[in-house]
Amino acid sequence: MLNKIKTPKDLKKISETELPQLCDEIRQTLIQKISVTGGHLGPNLGVVELTTALHYVFNAPVDKIVFDVSHQIYVHKMLTGRARAFTDPKHYHDVNGFSNPNESPYDLFTLGHTSTALSLACGLAKARDLQKQKHHVVAIIGDGSLSGGQAYEALNNIAEQGGNIIVIVNDNEMSIAENHGGYYRNLAQLRASNGQAENNFFRALGLDYIYEPNGNDVHALVNTLTKVKDCTTPTVVHVHTVKGFGYEPAMRNPEAFHFTAPFDLTTGQTNPNNSVNYVQITSEYLTAHMRQDRCLLTVTAGTPQAIGFNASARQQVQPQFVDVGIAEEHAVAFIAGAAKGGAHPIFGVQGSFLQRSFDQLHQDLSLDHNPATLLLFGDHAHGMGGATHNGFYDIVELGNIPNLIYLAPISKQSYLQMLEWSIAQNAHSVAIRVPDAVIDDPLPIKKFTINARIISQGAQVAIIAVGSAFPLAQKVVSELQNKGLNPTLVDPVCVSQLDEKLLTAIAKNHQLVITIEEGALQGGFGQKVAAYYGDTNIKVHNFGFSKGLTQDFIPADLLKQNGLTVANITKYVLTHC
Amino acid sequence: MLNKIKTPKDLKKISETELPQLCDEIRQTLIQKISVTGGHLGPNLGVVELTTALHYVFNAPVDKIVFDVSHQIYVHKMLTGRARAFTDPKHYHDVNGFSNPNESPYDLFTLGHTSTALSLACGLAKARDLQKQKHHVVAIIGDGSLSGGQAYEALNNIAEQGGNIIVIVNDNEMSIAENHGGYYRNLAQLRASNGQAENNFFRALGLDYIYEPNGNDVHALVNTLTKVKDCTTPTVVHVHTVKGFGYEPAMRNPEAFHFTAPFDLTTGQTNPNNSVNYVQITSEYLTAHMRQDRCLLTVTAGTPQAIGFNASARQQVQPQFVDVGIAEEHAVAFIAGAAKGGAHPIFGVQGSFLQRSFDQLHQDLSLDHNPATLLLFGDHAHGMGGATHNGFYDIVELGNIPNLIYLAPISKQSYLQMLEWSIAQNAHSVAIRVPDAVIDDPLPIKKFTINARIISQGAQVAIIAVGSAFPLAQKVVSELQNKGLNPTLVDPVCVSQLDEKLLTAIAKNHQLVITIEEGALQGGFGQKVAAYYGDTNIKVHNFGFSKGLTQDFIPADLLKQNGLTVANITKYVLTHC
Repeated sequence: MLNKIKTPKDLKKISETELPQLCDEIRQTLIQKISVTGGHLGPNLGVVELTTALHYVFNAPVDKIVFDVSHQIYVHKMLTGRARAFTDPKHYHDVNGFSNPNESPYDLFTLGHTSTALSLACGLAKARDLQKQKHHVVAIIGDGSLSGGQAYEALNNIAEQGGNIIVIVNDNEMSIAENHGGYYRNLAQLRASNGQAENNFFRALGLDYIYEPNGNDVHALVNTLTKVKDCTTPTVVHVHTVKGFGYEPAMRNPEAFHFTAPFDLTTGQTNPNNSVNYVQITSEYLTAHMRQDRCLLTVTAGTPQAIGFNASARQQVQPQFVDVGIAEEHAVAFIAGAAKGGAHPIFGVQGSFLQRSFDQLHQDLSLDHNPATLLLFGDHAHGMGGATHNGFYDIVELGNIPNLIYLAPISKQSYLQMLEWSIAQNAHSVAIRVPDAVIDDPLPIKKFTINARIISQGAQVAIIAVGSAFPLAQKVVSELQNKGLNPTLVDPVCVSQLDEKLLTAIAKNHQLVITIEEGALQGGFGQKVAAYYGDTNIKVHNFGFSKGLTQDFIPADLLKQNGLTVANITKYVLTHC
Repeated sequence: MLNKIKTPKDLKKISETELPQLCDEIRQTLIQKISVTGGHLGPNLGVVELTTALHYVFNAPVDKIVFDVSHQIYVHKMLTGRARAFTDPKHYHDVNGFSNPNESPYDLFTLGHTSTALSLACGLAKARDLQKQKHHVVAIIGDGSLSGGQAYEALNNIAEQGGNIIVIVNDNEMSIAENHGGYYRNLAQLRASNGQAENNFFRALGLDYIYEPNGNDVHALVNTLTKVKDCTTPTVVHVHTVKGFGYEPAMRNPEAFHFTAPFDLTTGQTNPNNSVNYVQITSEYLTAHMRQDRCLLTVTAGTPQAIGFNASARQQVQPQFVDVGIAEEHAVAFIAGAAKGGAHPIFGVQGSFLQRSFDQLHQDLSLDHNPATLLLFGDHAHGMGGATHNGFYDIVELGNIPNLIYLAPISKQSYLQMLEWSIAQNAHSVAIRVPDAVIDDPLPIKKFTINARIISQGAQVAIIAVGSAFPLAQKVVSELQNKGLNPTLVDPVCVSQLDEKLLTAIAKNHQLVITIEEGALQGGFGQKVAAYYGDTNIKVHNFGFSKGLTQDFIPADLLKQNGLTVANITKYVLTHC
């Protein structure tokens, strides 16, 4: 049936009695594909019926449907002309895992961060009303995403704006891990009371509300959505679904199957990853130190596994581990308050999500030098890619905030030394750019300072390589040595300020300075170096990523496209020396 | 009485029966001082009794008291050793208008942006509990600040964390202008029902709740605060106060007296400001165009007056004017949605508040090139100063976001042309850095392009002056001409990308390029120019503000400290040419 659905119009030709069969086909297709490719299995299994019912009842793309965070959009893709990317292994990679306007007019926005869909829907509805159009606007948001403050801001505005906006709360009783926050108790009360609890968060905000307990029953959903479709005031449809529904291993372990690597269909087992990585190094370090120091506090904003704390690891270090829910703004001001109060907070976060906290980093954390530590994980060049999750803008963001010290370790030893220093000191707000590959430091490590380090002293050309770009720089140096040059290799250590003393020293016996960073060039570290030498005779060239490079990418291609290769950098140096 | 209170301990020596008299003295002192200096009159008059009661009941600084946004902190300053700065005109400027740890250990954080106090308090309480300390933690937040999503994120975490945290909601039925959003209806229901409304937003989040209707009665407040003081679970105290209480003109016109210029004590009249300014130019332009284009939509996040729309102006352009409340994250995603839906949204905002929207600017607005326009007002060098409100980081923030076009007009004509172009086009997300001084363009304006403009062609040295720095650059050029040089003067127009064609052309007959921007140097526009010329023979020097310069400042001093003077720049050029 699935392959016959080229647009939602074809779906509407199917009789309602056949929908469960279609849902079953969709579900098996999802499990089959994701077992091969990996992906967000649990969230998508949970919304098979909901997505099918939505496209059965509403008339996209005239009606506007927006999926929050959009990692639960696979079924929508299947029903809007992209089924082949799920049914045919040769086409598995035709689509990415998020809402993508480049793929289809049914995808209105490029989405990947949580809690924005309600604002986008509110704007779509406002534009509709100004133009006196008549279509419906629907947003689907998970219970986990409701912890993000922007969702609340939008609910407020939606209530005031009025008109036809349907907010579907897909309540699967989970965020990526378990839910956190007071509103979650209210959702539980509403589920337990079949929507009749004494206090109703949504009604308190002035929204109409309806509860649908059978969120994996396509008939119930068609019925409920048909009922609310033509509402004239904003209406919340609270739908209870089961994350991972229909695949036993995913229902048994929903946290692991939120996003999974390829797995064995029968057992649900993924290949164990035994390589040493910084997530593991960090959680081991923090766990050991939390035991010794009761003021050490580890914080996550809804992604505990991403910093190495699974459910049992979290339990071991209570009350020194806090998951604030997906709420990055609060997380940063919270650690600022905890630091001011005498704790030593560590907030571990994936780089691109920290963009949500720019103002809090600036004002609440750094302005008063509150001594907290941020660990920025992954995504610099080799992590999870895509338009929404790349971490290329971290140096631009954190490197230019007053008072904040942003460190970029090149090795495991350097990383642990920075972490130890940051936790022990009480004078600075500190962030650390956790690298990807675990390598040993080329030099014996002495006492930590934020000064740049000369790794090997040469002359004529100096190469300053930021953090994760260091192995590449080492290869370039080696290649240049083969060509008879003797470059100086520098680890800048800190990317939020320049070691002017070292740069001045370099000026004496070098003519060319090369910077390499796995991050955006504009506003980044290299441009600071270029500006420092701007009116001297030293020539500077920056290697890094072009601004605007935000589409899906393969890491090796990305590096090549931006000229971050041994051959290209070597050639540049040989031409300009 | 006031002058005898050196610390809150002295306050506690006063008998409770004398507190109303003290409050009266505080109130008259506030009115007197602010009539001379200007300031946040309305918010402070409303919390005279609340602040007095807080310090009477709690034991700061052992107990931690955090004022959200902190423009209502004047009374707190009076009661914590800084009364002279209010009673003695010679000392009026000893204190600033916000929470300031440099002034006093009773001020825990430098605060100026809304909706952060609950997160900070939550962090303070967590640190207390980890250290097994016993003090109380109190946060005071206004009803207007409750629209900010971070406040909701914090309420969620506070409910889950538990323990003694007292959240005082100072409900004066207003934001800066009228309140907006669904939660506000719930506050009204709670007031009307003496706290007994059917749905209770705070209880829905799992917080204990108590309503105090008499928020300007110091006895009632002492009584209520004493009752909740030792609560063992987080408790919201919803206090109903009157903004501007006790000064008739402020009660009659609370929006105008939220922040006032110096005024006549008897009449409440301020000196009319008849100078032409961009706020007025913008609101006139938008009002006229909204009448002609029903898809044109003006958006504010709680500061309508700051973009020139008073209550009657707002009324005139309904439904094309939306105040989303203090909710900058939502505002940016909302305009992204509205743009996608076919409207032409304009979001006017003060520069430093837009920091709250960094992620939404990056992902929701710019990634998909949604064609909305942002107007960044004031604060670049001559606007409202202080650590929290300066707008020096706008070029760093907006100039480095992929796809976003950030324009910096040098003149009224240039500004209006940019605005017209931005509204008419459908391909780009655009932001405009509204300058301070209204000046005429030195050249006749042709059709708008984002290419840089050569204002006067010379040789040897080129000066590229960003937006509001243009008048300074003109004076430098004139001075250099007196010294026999003939500099080229360039208006870069766009600061988010370089006009490489023009820069290449300049390279032919210039040896030195000077950039001037009233903004942070690190990550700013000038560094892009320096990097562009990095490996050429062109020398580049950037003039702008040092990173970290975030304390209170006087604009002229700031420019001088950073070398942005005619004499200094001229001298630099003469020395290096």
